[in-house]
Amino acid sequence: MAIEIERKFLVNKDLLPLPNDGKKLIQGYIWSYPQKSLRIRIAGEKAFLTIKAGNDILKRSEFEYEIPMTDAHELLDLCDAKIEKTRYLIPMDSYTWEVDVFHGDNQGLIVAEIELASSEEQIQLPEWIDQEVSNDPKYLNVSLIENPFIKW
Amino acid sequence: MAIEIERKFLVNKDLLPLPNDGKKLIQGYIWSYPQKSLRIRIAGEKAFLTIKAGNDILKRSEFEYEIPMTDAHELLDLCDAKIEKTRYLIPMDSYTWEVDVFHGDNQGLIVAEIELASSEEQIQLPEWIDQEVSNDPKYLNVSLIENPFIKW
Repeated sequence: MAIEIERKFLVNKDLLPLPNDGKKLIQGYIWSYPQKSLRIRIAGEKAFLTIKAGNDILKRSEFEYEIPMTDAHELLDLCDAKIEKTRYLIPMDSYTWEVDVFHGDNQGLIVAEIELASSEEQIQLPEWIDQEVSNDPKYLNVSLIENPFIKW
Repeated sequence: MAIEIERKFLVNKDLLPLPNDGKKLIQGYIWSYPQKSLRIRIAGEKAFLTIKAGNDILKRSEFEYEIPMTDAHELLDLCDAKIEKTRYLIPMDSYTWEVDVFHGDNQGLIVAEIELASSEEQIQLPEWIDQEVSNDPKYLNVSLIENPFIKW
């Protein structure tokens, strides 16, 4: 188990030149509550099952296990809806920004996340970072399934 | 993933001499619905995460993964309630009966399960088998947490 401390920001896409090597992610939720979720994710050639739990969005317990790809497909079939996005990794200083470009019903949404060692840690924000949305539950992937970006 | 075809019976404990080598099982449910559950189980020295899904109690999809023991303890702490039981394996003909002797709030309940290759398969029932409860959802472990045997 790892405690996950993440900050999440919107992106000004005109200022961010995306790298070419994005990884396609397909994910669904067997259970999807902001406080407790079970995610199935296919990331390129690998597949993972992830339990996230905790009331503080910024700081949740995360349990992740790699699972066989055939299981992942069967488990995704049990999910009501799926999220598809392309993830780009952008190294900067000693951090790596994860930039998610959403597709499907969340087309148009681009979000950047950074993982920190503590919630007090100060970071230098790159110029392509827009407003912070860390504490806004509507940007959680579980929420984006229920209420996708194109409906906002 | 495996399709799990199980039949479940009550046991006449006066006719069943239990073997000495039972394995203590501690399990809890992160989510517990008869149609869809996520179980955390500690079985002796090993720990497992199991997703069961399906509307037919007799025949459910089961996805099971071994997880680290430390994760299992942390995940069990997220569960509202736990079930403790001792499992005995009793080989008979080409089958192995799993006899679960429940403890705690389900003390007094003893259930025998047999896994079959198809739901049409005929089996010879040993003399210590009592009534069949395969289709009774109150004997599901998820139900025994909500409504334990001592309250019946």
